[in-house]
Amino acid sequence: MKWAGMGAASVPLSSVLKKSVRVSKNAKNDPKKTQGGKKRLNLGMASYTFREFNLDDTLTMTKRLGLERIALKSFHLPLEATDEEIKAVADKVRKAGLDLYGCGVVYMQNEDEVNRAFHYAETAGMKVIIGAPNPNLLQMVNKMVNKSDIKLAIHNHGPGDEHYPTPESAYIKIKNLDPRVGLCIDIGHTQRSGVDPSESAKKFSDRLLDVHIKDVTAAAKEGQTVEIGHGVIDIPKFLRTLLELNYEGSVSFEFEKDPDDPLPGVAESVGYVRGVLAAL
Amino acid sequence: MKWAGMGAASVPLSSVLKKSVRVSKNAKNDPKKTQGGKKRLNLGMASYTFREFNLDDTLTMTKRLGLERIALKSFHLPLEATDEEIKAVADKVRKAGLDLYGCGVVYMQNEDEVNRAFHYAETAGMKVIIGAPNPNLLQMVNKMVNKSDIKLAIHNHGPGDEHYPTPESAYIKIKNLDPRVGLCIDIGHTQRSGVDPSESAKKFSDRLLDVHIKDVTAAAKEGQTVEIGHGVIDIPKFLRTLLELNYEGSVSFEFEKDPDDPLPGVAESVGYVRGVLAAL
Repeated sequence: MKWAGMGAASVPLSSVLKKSVRVSKNAKNDPKKTQGGKKRLNLGMASYTFREFNLDDTLTMTKRLGLERIALKSFHLPLEATDEEIKAVADKVRKAGLDLYGCGVVYMQNEDEVNRAFHYAETAGMKVIIGAPNPNLLQMVNKMVNKSDIKLAIHNHGPGDEHYPTPESAYIKIKNLDPRVGLCIDIGHTQRSGVDPSESAKKFSDRLLDVHIKDVTAAAKEGQTVEIGHGVIDIPKFLRTLLELNYEGSVSFEFEKDPDDPLPGVAESVGYVRGVLAAL
Repeated sequence: MKWAGMGAASVPLSSVLKKSVRVSKNAKNDPKKTQGGKKRLNLGMASYTFREFNLDDTLTMTKRLGLERIALKSFHLPLEATDEEIKAVADKVRKAGLDLYGCGVVYMQNEDEVNRAFHYAETAGMKVIIGAPNPNLLQMVNKMVNKSDIKLAIHNHGPGDEHYPTPESAYIKIKNLDPRVGLCIDIGHTQRSGVDPSESAKKFSDRLLDVHIKDVTAAAKEGQTVEIGHGVIDIPKFLRTLLELNYEGSVSFEFEKDPDDPLPGVAESVGYVRGVLAAL
């Protein structure tokens, strides 16, 4: 085991966090009720948020936020892990009470990497790969989705992304493939491209498989990620759109700011989304 | 200087927090815009939240949350401080860019303590004392308010509070006094008394001078404080009520859970309130 996922912390957690962990074990974390049932969205964690922390700390912080599902980035489960390692991590996540629904973002540059990604997801029991396969691999991806029944959600990465800057740029490449090949709309990168994420969600709702929720300071390439509510994205409009679409996928927090200390910022973001859902 | 306010941390902050402070200096913290102007409430911090941290850390964390005003508890500025100490702390708070609008909760058991509290608030340039004077001192308090033009907001402390368990129990004792003698409705203790905080705010709006916002697990004495959204208080209803009343006082976060590590929980609470305000 050469990687941080199951070993010691890559960034040692402070006594402050250790105390918090102890406290949170006795805490009541059941924000579902206040979402009022009918307004439910499946809020989750994109573990990229905790890229400077090991798997144990990532699970502890995700649980503390009252989230119930998680998609793992390779920092927490390397793509080259053995089957035994993959199964051990998947087991640990599920024993922590979290739904290990997916992984990503997984880049795929060649056929080996496509095979590896689907084998990885299948071994871990994941339902969706949030990915960015090179466009010339999409026919192969289509076959793998068909064979494995694992969804592939293409993640748009904003201005500067050669293949998939916007949801639309991904949609036009996959619209004739199996419906289980679809989109993970990253609303930050969408807004940075000058595109309204709510419009994208509506327009491509037949292929909306996953969402990365966040906020950015500007609807421009220069836009920086910030706590939700501190930026320019119309979050109430976006969440209202998802509810109107009866969207049943995950809405996962990918908080890119403050990598060494992301918990307060992602907590504020989670609170904001729950507040909007409670008020809508 | 024997106390922690201007000296070393009473609880040493971890490298995690130090990193966060560095990061937040470059961060954009302007959530006002997303409140949409017309929906503005004056969100602030009740420094009791950070009772295990010194003044510097308290100011840093309050700023990181994008809050603009603060009321200090005696941990951060002792009631027995000298005038020089009081002025130095007030100056430090204001230089940090925060409105030092008040203090509390200040208990007053005798005339000396009333005199001391008003002298303290006057020296610090505070506009309101959030307090709990013994009822037999209310005539004296009334005179002091009149003389100093500093408001006195009586804080209800829920079941078990001999004098002021509910907003109503305070209101009936002060309704014939100067209108600057009023209430700080603590919505957690109000709900714990089985009283709807929104109803209290409406009923006693002519004397509503300050608010402590929080959430609790049950509308009963046993109710424990939790992150806003995890408890039973109808926060959208309460905030809608304040907006309908055109309430112009402060709405301050008093987060009692996780005293050794309150930042994630109070951040989630701040986010929740901003989310509700954005969606209303």
